[in-house]
Amino acid sequence: MDTFTAISQARDLIPGISMLISKSPDRYAPDIWPTYYQSASGVHVTALDGKSYLDFGIMSVGACSLGYANPIVNNAAKASIDNGVITSLNCFEEVELARRLVLLHPWADMARFTRSGGEANAVSVRIARAFTNRSKVAICGYHGWHDWYIATNLQSNSKLNPFVMAGLEPKGVPSELEGTTIPFFFNDIASFDKALYENPDMAAVKLEVQRSQPPNPAFLSHIREECTRRNIVLIFDECTSGFRETLGGIHLLYGVEPDIAVFGKTLGNGFPICAVIGKKHIMQFVENTFISSTFWTERVGPSAALATLDVMEDIRSWEILPKIGRQIKSIWQEVASHNLLPSGAPVITISGIDALPVFSFNLEYSLIAKTYLIQSLLDEGILSTNSFYCCTLHDHPDYYSRYRKCFAKSMQDIVSLNETLLREKLRTRPCVGGFTRLNATID
Amino acid sequence: MDTFTAISQARDLIPGISMLISKSPDRYAPDIWPTYYQSASGVHVTALDGKSYLDFGIMSVGACSLGYANPIVNNAAKASIDNGVITSLNCFEEVELARRLVLLHPWADMARFTRSGGEANAVSVRIARAFTNRSKVAICGYHGWHDWYIATNLQSNSKLNPFVMAGLEPKGVPSELEGTTIPFFFNDIASFDKALYENPDMAAVKLEVQRSQPPNPAFLSHIREECTRRNIVLIFDECTSGFRETLGGIHLLYGVEPDIAVFGKTLGNGFPICAVIGKKHIMQFVENTFISSTFWTERVGPSAALATLDVMEDIRSWEILPKIGRQIKSIWQEVASHNLLPSGAPVITISGIDALPVFSFNLEYSLIAKTYLIQSLLDEGILSTNSFYCCTLHDHPDYYSRYRKCFAKSMQDIVSLNETLLREKLRTRPCVGGFTRLNATID
Repeated sequence: MDTFTAISQARDLIPGISMLISKSPDRYAPDIWPTYYQSASGVHVTALDGKSYLDFGIMSVGACSLGYANPIVNNAAKASIDNGVITSLNCFEEVELARRLVLLHPWADMARFTRSGGEANAVSVRIARAFTNRSKVAICGYHGWHDWYIATNLQSNSKLNPFVMAGLEPKGVPSELEGTTIPFFFNDIASFDKALYENPDMAAVKLEVQRSQPPNPAFLSHIREECTRRNIVLIFDECTSGFRETLGGIHLLYGVEPDIAVFGKTLGNGFPICAVIGKKHIMQFVENTFISSTFWTERVGPSAALATLDVMEDIRSWEILPKIGRQIKSIWQEVASHNLLPSGAPVITISGIDALPVFSFNLEYSLIAKTYLIQSLLDEGILSTNSFYCCTLHDHPDYYSRYRKCFAKSMQDIVSLNETLLREKLRTRPCVGGFTRLNATID
Repeated sequence: MDTFTAISQARDLIPGISMLISKSPDRYAPDIWPTYYQSASGVHVTALDGKSYLDFGIMSVGACSLGYANPIVNNAAKASIDNGVITSLNCFEEVELARRLVLLHPWADMARFTRSGGEANAVSVRIARAFTNRSKVAICGYHGWHDWYIATNLQSNSKLNPFVMAGLEPKGVPSELEGTTIPFFFNDIASFDKALYENPDMAAVKLEVQRSQPPNPAFLSHIREECTRRNIVLIFDECTSGFRETLGGIHLLYGVEPDIAVFGKTLGNGFPICAVIGKKHIMQFVENTFISSTFWTERVGPSAALATLDVMEDIRSWEILPKIGRQIKSIWQEVASHNLLPSGAPVITISGIDALPVFSFNLEYSLIAKTYLIQSLLDEGILSTNSFYCCTLHDHPDYYSRYRKCFAKSMQDIVSLNETLLREKLRTRPCVGGFTRLNATID
């Protein structure tokens, strides 16, 4: 199948084109993005037309922090397939994975597994609601597509409401859930307190410990104290932050312990496996409700996760990833400092944890600029965007210098050309924006 | 890891022991069920202690209709792993899978994929709600663990209510959803009409086309007509029934077309892959809401599904499975006819579609009898229960005769011994019951 056939068939056959919004070609360079791959290894992806790209972009939204097709993880996955991927009995690897995760997080006692991050978040919310016998959940991050979370956007007067997250369209989420998920702002104790004050019947507080900015220690400890005092379940969603800057949740760096933590993405280096770990007296409420799924018993996920943990421990990946991210940030910083806007202001603003750097354009036509950047790097054989998900194999001077050169050239054009001229240089429609998060805005 | 260690660690580490209620040892013979496997091939499973069992039971709740570790499917899965299981780009296999599924179901135009059946059902409900701008869903089957479905059991006076499904505990499902999911009885036009009459704002009607009994043609066509007339989305959940008695949904046998159909289990012969297929004007509402997940973009699922479809087509599995099921039913029937209860009544009642035979004990102590049956067949190296999920490799005279002999011997004991004597023979606590369905009761 060639790229053109694949994309045009997909537009007919698959609403939204991709199963993940962040993998839609419309988010990059709609008419020229390769969109489909035939193979991948390390940090290289071969598209359907046979062209090989260096992936200096989302690296599968950070699912492969050890690089594509890691041989040790792949061999573990393939062995589990040879030995039967699913049976009437259970795979013992999931018991071992539970044990390993609990060992890495001494505050936790038990674990459950799913095969997608949205599901794992929904499981954690179900458990918290069962434990507290309350409905409401306070949030300040991104936690997937499920009703409980998208219900946040079921807000009246939504255009005037600073909490409404653009792009998370709640159509199809039952209106009965309006008011069950309560947003507050990250690092903003006052908005958190207001959420709690107005909703004394809170079941859970769920947050991403760190997305764009580090958490204020007072913010984290205040949340922990309030949750303890009010018997609210504190859930850290570590799907994006986990296993990047420490061997486990990034919360281990901050000394604040949740009641439940959720992991995904990095845990199996690309193989679907997500975990909900938590304290025993809460996790046991799984048995007081109904949480069960056939495919959660397959074997590849836990087998891949065990091998991924082995490799991570072996090479200490959590020390490599932030180092790479700092290198990327310094490239961006240096290029930006040489390419100021006519006003003298920097063209980009850099943020994100070190292992997941991100920048935004300080331009009114940021989507045009972003598309131009993506197009110019694509022309040089590089997949990129305004965020960078580090994998351990990115750390190579040749990659850095190739990326730096292409990035600098493109940024030079972006600051020297105006919107009209940039748009004229595009060989594609501009990309569309993503969705807003309460703890970061990514376009 | 040995069996004892695995189970005792799991009881400490994993609430509910298994990720799937139907794979908990407590559903079989709690203290002697092997529970964990090391390998599986064809219809044989090797437990952790090295003992090999013939699987004449749930065959992974029907996920492997081609038998365990089918080499063609496994090779496709392993090739997709070698070529990179996930990247920043998408796998073209999902486009091909969408095309194949739509070809097999001429009424459908588009497809979306998930990695668990509960998720796929939740996606279908979200789409239907977005399309109709209504909340309510009428159901008469089993559709997974998600809030929208378990909300059915959020009913007042639940002990007096014939619609409450035992075992589907709604603790942790927000009470705000009470009344959003409306149960009716399978093959019961009056109860369906009542559900519609009392809830004119219905978004979707969802059913399993066939579980224990075949659908009454008038029932199906009435539902189709009412849904069309009221612009309600008709969803067939084919997770259990699909690809067993026809190449596609079992609805193809009945000439009634839904607006959306959901597939799971059989589709990838054990690899996690589920599909939501539907009509274009409805499926397009995916783009008006937010449905997105990282792991839905992995490659093993669609690759395994394409290979599974190839093998199914090649051997015409949908003709083999019902034949095997009829053979099993005839063994049960024949044994039962020789082992009447003292009252002269048959000891079991047989039901289920041919590809998924099931029986229930006509005894007040049915769980004791079931545990005894499981125990005695386990002693002969056979995994079994009161349901049988056919796979194409079950069709072997040696297997049938071995199973028949062991089954007959056990049933002879069951009818000749009373409850006390049967209980004395158990080397385990009795099994616990499962959950009730509106279209079948399985204990």
